[in-house]
Amino acid sequence: MATEVFDKQKTIDLRKKYIGPSCKVFFNHDPIKIIRARGQYMYSEKDEQYLDCINNVAHVGHSHPEVVSAGTKQMELLNTNSRFLHDNLVHYAQRLQATLPEKLSVCYFVNSGSEANDLALRLAWQHTGHKDIITLDNAYHGHVSSLIDISPYKFHQLGQTEQSQHVHVAPSPDIYRGKFREDHPDPATAYADEVRDIIEKAHAKGHKIAAFIAESLQSCGGQVIPPVGYFQKVAHHVRNVGGVFIADEVQVGFGRVGSHFWAFQLQGDDFVPDIVTMGKPIGNGHPMSCVVTTREVAESFMSSGMEYFNTFGGNPVSCAIGMAVLDVIEKEDLQGNALRVGKYLMELLEKLKEKHPLIGDTRGCGLFVGVDLVKDRLKRTPATAEAQDVIYRLKDQKILLSADGPHRNVLKFKPPMCFSREDADLAVGKIDHILTGTHSRAKYSL
Amino acid sequence: MATEVFDKQKTIDLRKKYIGPSCKVFFNHDPIKIIRARGQYMYSEKDEQYLDCINNVAHVGHSHPEVVSAGTKQMELLNTNSRFLHDNLVHYAQRLQATLPEKLSVCYFVNSGSEANDLALRLAWQHTGHKDIITLDNAYHGHVSSLIDISPYKFHQLGQTEQSQHVHVAPSPDIYRGKFREDHPDPATAYADEVRDIIEKAHAKGHKIAAFIAESLQSCGGQVIPPVGYFQKVAHHVRNVGGVFIADEVQVGFGRVGSHFWAFQLQGDDFVPDIVTMGKPIGNGHPMSCVVTTREVAESFMSSGMEYFNTFGGNPVSCAIGMAVLDVIEKEDLQGNALRVGKYLMELLEKLKEKHPLIGDTRGCGLFVGVDLVKDRLKRTPATAEAQDVIYRLKDQKILLSADGPHRNVLKFKPPMCFSREDADLAVGKIDHILTGTHSRAKYSL
Repeated sequence: MATEVFDKQKTIDLRKKYIGPSCKVFFNHDPIKIIRARGQYMYSEKDEQYLDCINNVAHVGHSHPEVVSAGTKQMELLNTNSRFLHDNLVHYAQRLQATLPEKLSVCYFVNSGSEANDLALRLAWQHTGHKDIITLDNAYHGHVSSLIDISPYKFHQLGQTEQSQHVHVAPSPDIYRGKFREDHPDPATAYADEVRDIIEKAHAKGHKIAAFIAESLQSCGGQVIPPVGYFQKVAHHVRNVGGVFIADEVQVGFGRVGSHFWAFQLQGDDFVPDIVTMGKPIGNGHPMSCVVTTREVAESFMSSGMEYFNTFGGNPVSCAIGMAVLDVIEKEDLQGNALRVGKYLMELLEKLKEKHPLIGDTRGCGLFVGVDLVKDRLKRTPATAEAQDVIYRLKDQKILLSADGPHRNVLKFKPPMCFSREDADLAVGKIDHILTGTHSRAKYSL
Repeated sequence: MATEVFDKQKTIDLRKKYIGPSCKVFFNHDPIKIIRARGQYMYSEKDEQYLDCINNVAHVGHSHPEVVSAGTKQMELLNTNSRFLHDNLVHYAQRLQATLPEKLSVCYFVNSGSEANDLALRLAWQHTGHKDIITLDNAYHGHVSSLIDISPYKFHQLGQTEQSQHVHVAPSPDIYRGKFREDHPDPATAYADEVRDIIEKAHAKGHKIAAFIAESLQSCGGQVIPPVGYFQKVAHHVRNVGGVFIADEVQVGFGRVGSHFWAFQLQGDDFVPDIVTMGKPIGNGHPMSCVVTTREVAESFMSSGMEYFNTFGGNPVSCAIGMAVLDVIEKEDLQGNALRVGKYLMELLEKLKEKHPLIGDTRGCGLFVGVDLVKDRLKRTPATAEAQDVIYRLKDQKILLSADGPHRNVLKFKPPMCFSREDADLAVGKIDHILTGTHSRAKYSL
């Protein structure tokens, strides 16, 4: 069984000494030490059980035995690079492709969502011969330098506002807090027209668009669900000028949205991106990810003459684990569970909204759910401190939830996909209790 | 046991269908299918045994049971991100730091050598406030876009010669084939003066140097061992203008050079880089890597206000595996083995050089060894086709070796660290046999 090497204070001290201070912990005031986890539950060094509502990486449940077993068996046999032929690589690619529209047929296996998005940019640059990227406001696409450039969520944190001249930021298609709201007759067209205007302005300066990139649902950006039809219209404008559409599914893919396996499919069958990037849930915690694109884009990339080699990407262990994750999603009907439990969770939260004026909006698809806290429902003023307070109080109640978005006021549910109705009842019940008493208590400072 | 899902031709066909065509296999004429491996041996689908002289990732030997066991045990317990406190993270950081000079004390755990080198650039940019990078000719530092920019090995493959104006290429300190050779009285100073000149020219144009980056020994660049003192002199010039020195140990670290744990230590105790990046061997195939830097650089990075979060980096499984690799290196004295067997291998190759005029140079440190094949010893004309011929003939003899360098004429030994004297005898014996008959046989085309 799990035991501690150091007591908690020693762990904190060693972390201060040896780990980069830019790497933050959850609950900075009193971080949690977790030593084991199973399903949707995590356990502290004191064996306290926490309900995990935030780990979208542990997609099929923490330490799922089938995934562990697949990894172990393959590690015992072989773990090497993809310059040798191996069945796992091609078998997994075949299975992953089967979840996607036919046109998206060529895979590149890499190690993280960041590597995937960086490769997506390289594919777009090479295929189009253009340089400029259009990204959404508040977007986060990863931590490597090329992605910081296209991640307003990150580069807004910098004092300087040194934005690359090849990056254009379009408004987030957020119909609750954005430029065009739920009362607009056609927000999909209105937001897409903003992208068209950006393209025209860029062209006027002699710039050319390589790609539009967006998460199929914005996550860190505040759990934003774009209006249906928006992606089709954006893709039309972008392809018109020779650019490609990159759908970032790193946080939201693999059945989380319940009704579909991929979140971009929420836009309708008539929408197919040119490039899809995957990440977090793909290996249930194992470091792996994938980029899938069209034959056409892949051929352009090859035509540069530059080989692509990724040391760890597509190794037999990662592929075995990836296949086990697909197996478990299917066998345990986790996509169906996400649909059913997600719907139930939304109903509970809707009721909560009727009761508590602090809740301005609830929005969700499957087990991707956001609760937008506001100080004033009319002005929609973000209730940032209140959201942090709720998060800390939930933690005291052994519920792990987080708050995100540009104002850090959106409570974010993205639990392991085995999350149950009982878990939803428990979490929402605790939130209800906290919100009921929230005005009479002292707040945590940030 | 390992079994095939598809026959070899089917595997090849599926690979053509589903895997990016830029991802190449070894031995394109007749690639190898490997289904299991142990120690320094790999086995085909027909159970043919290959001696592996090239997989520097399988550092402590393929599928080492202690490493597999450590990974399995931790996967069963917990695999989550570093926002929760965990002993493995800090314990591993502490142990890794203990192998390094005291000044290099702050770790960032990431997923690949590419992520590590990209982060090193971000650290350098933020710490210095400068933008320009000096890299070596023929260098390879990774596949993400920022690293293609500083990898002449890669960007020379592009038709266009679109080089970033912030990147400066210094001559590779190659005393066999470079600008200053073994007959030069002081090649270390001469090569370092080239870097000084680059700095002066950049300054004249108003540019400022953020970092000099080099592999401690150039690998893909042709197994180049820089003259002792070169790094000290370069570091002096670079630090003089506010830049930092990044030592890339992705290919060459973790005891491979035999006499030291890190290859930069070959330069002497008076040399300490500002940033060290790790990769390939660190997890014996598990996707992980690390950047280590000084407290000073780490504090500068934090002062930007931008958090650094890496979803998979530093997870408890990766850290458990990393610790097991350190354990095995120590328990099995693999660094000592690299020193002893490397020395023996060099002696065998020296004798081979006396016998075969095709061998122009042999060079090595521990189990990092290069054999430079030339058509003409005086002119040192690279024997590219001959090197490919040797590689293919060795493959027929069930020996896996590769040829690299800008001219692809350098036979490259970088075997798992359990490589034995008997393995060295076998491989060199086969090379001897091939070279003895090489002039009377038809060549493979490239």
